[in-house]
Amino acid sequence: MSSLAHEDLVVVDGLEINNWDRKVLEELRTGGVSGVNATCAVWEGPDEATRAIAGWYRLARDNEDVVVLAETAGQIRAAKAAGKVAVVLGFQNTSPFADDYRLVEVFHRLGVRVAQLTYNIQNLVGGACYDAHDSGLTAFGRHIVDEMNRVGMLVDLSHVGNRTSRDAIDASERPVAITHANPTWFFEHPRNKPAEVIRALADRGGVLGCCLYPNVLGGELTTRDQFSSMVARLVDEIGPDHVAIGSDCTRNWSQDFVAWLRNGRWRPPSANPVEPEWPAWPRWFGGPEDFPAVTEGLLSAGLDAATVTKVMGGNWLRLFTEVFGGTEAP
Amino acid sequence: MSSLAHEDLVVVDGLEINNWDRKVLEELRTGGVSGVNATCAVWEGPDEATRAIAGWYRLARDNEDVVVLAETAGQIRAAKAAGKVAVVLGFQNTSPFADDYRLVEVFHRLGVRVAQLTYNIQNLVGGACYDAHDSGLTAFGRHIVDEMNRVGMLVDLSHVGNRTSRDAIDASERPVAITHANPTWFFEHPRNKPAEVIRALADRGGVLGCCLYPNVLGGELTTRDQFSSMVARLVDEIGPDHVAIGSDCTRNWSQDFVAWLRNGRWRPPSANPVEPEWPAWPRWFGGPEDFPAVTEGLLSAGLDAATVTKVMGGNWLRLFTEVFGGTEAP
Repeated sequence: MSSLAHEDLVVVDGLEINNWDRKVLEELRTGGVSGVNATCAVWEGPDEATRAIAGWYRLARDNEDVVVLAETAGQIRAAKAAGKVAVVLGFQNTSPFADDYRLVEVFHRLGVRVAQLTYNIQNLVGGACYDAHDSGLTAFGRHIVDEMNRVGMLVDLSHVGNRTSRDAIDASERPVAITHANPTWFFEHPRNKPAEVIRALADRGGVLGCCLYPNVLGGELTTRDQFSSMVARLVDEIGPDHVAIGSDCTRNWSQDFVAWLRNGRWRPPSANPVEPEWPAWPRWFGGPEDFPAVTEGLLSAGLDAATVTKVMGGNWLRLFTEVFGGTEAP
Repeated sequence: MSSLAHEDLVVVDGLEINNWDRKVLEELRTGGVSGVNATCAVWEGPDEATRAIAGWYRLARDNEDVVVLAETAGQIRAAKAAGKVAVVLGFQNTSPFADDYRLVEVFHRLGVRVAQLTYNIQNLVGGACYDAHDSGLTAFGRHIVDEMNRVGMLVDLSHVGNRTSRDAIDASERPVAITHANPTWFFEHPRNKPAEVIRALADRGGVLGCCLYPNVLGGELTTRDQFSSMVARLVDEIGPDHVAIGSDCTRNWSQDFVAWLRNGRWRPPSANPVEPEWPAWPRWFGGPEDFPAVTEGLLSAGLDAATVTKVMGGNWLRLFTEVFGGTEAP
């Protein structure tokens, strides 16, 4: 077992969707998280997403001793050196782009560097994990992917349908990400990904963020050893450069927010098949403060120091470096 | 009379509100205009203004041999050297900020560097030139001015009421502009500015862009000598560092657009007191191609080369340098 210490790592979390405030940011700092893809839109349209970003500017300015908004891997490394948390703004949907490919560049200029193509249901861009049929990447979706490639915005395939995921992997000139999901061979769930999608992602240089959200982890009773063994098997299957962590932490929200995530405005709350509730998290990982336990688990599972360094953040930094530059200087 | 040549000047136009396309951009280049504050919103709200800016990104990318989007005086000088037109994006209203001071920073990030506080009628920020009463700069307006100072966005007082103008001059930590208006002593008109406003503006380091729009120039029959003498008198009164040009060119529009400028969505077209029509321009200045005639006129009026250099662009460059840096790095 390696003598690698968690605090020596540049830890990057592939996705968190917290109700961000100073206390939550301090939780990330306590957990040794130096970089995070922070969701600032799920169902929001252009104006709402813009206001959410405006809120981030304010939050970052008011807490500049803890947080910095980052648009490059280098800024995440600098945040680590400064003992701060670097926040990369991200969308979990393409709803902020509405039907206007030009808004990709607009939001890129506002600092957004990651966008998931769909969130749970079919949208203008493609199909999603909870719909019965998946349209594949649409004609508009191809332009969105092209534009994301051009300006340097990472395509995220979490919550995306498998057919659309395959199409997007093929269509993208740049490697793509699944920021927060697990393989279906670990836990069968619509949000998790079949081996062939993960393989195609890795073949094109992409990264999968192994996810700690209870619903895709197999519940609160899934052990750290089970999670760590899944990571180790993925490293064996697709190589150490394509596996990372995407915790999907959901700190500081009331119950309304889980209902918003499930229903958005696309169905009335009364039509929700089950009353939306936050799941219970495993005892060994309850939030961003517990990131040291993840490092420890990976080391216990026998991963070497170099691999743990990659999985805990190095792979996200590599991918961000490759993608955020874009194919054309905007 | 000086041997100064128009083509040696870095010509900057304080405001044009053209229907921008390649042909219009070429007209500016033909006229030797290296920098221009280009209006991209008059009545637009946040979303519409964002789409207009998205259109500018596309237009600039498709015509990069003619135009560059600029956010600094240095980029205007570089455009001059490269034989291009540098466009500084500007608003003629604060409607894109809606009731949200945070949108100042958002639009600043999108490239907007100039915003006129009001357009013709009272808004959330202050009073305007065509309303019977002027609220003065409102409580919200003070925050907008503060935020513009902080991020580095130029306050424009054209079309603004006189009381609000005085308030804004006092409230702003940075010098402000009247990008396109004339003194009322030259032509009495609600859009033109009384001597005390112009004096206060200059005392705080601001710049007045003398305007060629027929309605504020006194009509198409106003001669180049009359215009040039007005500029010369202004230089005598407030000094050579505070006088510039803001042509208010309105190229390439159909008649609908003048109705849009007059009525926006605040009154039905039927309530318009007179049928809106574009005015006829003077024979000596019909559009951006005629900028050499302005230089010639100023030289004929006896202004020295140093003063003409300032009036034709140097003063805008100085003001942009002072203001666009902001009081706090955003």
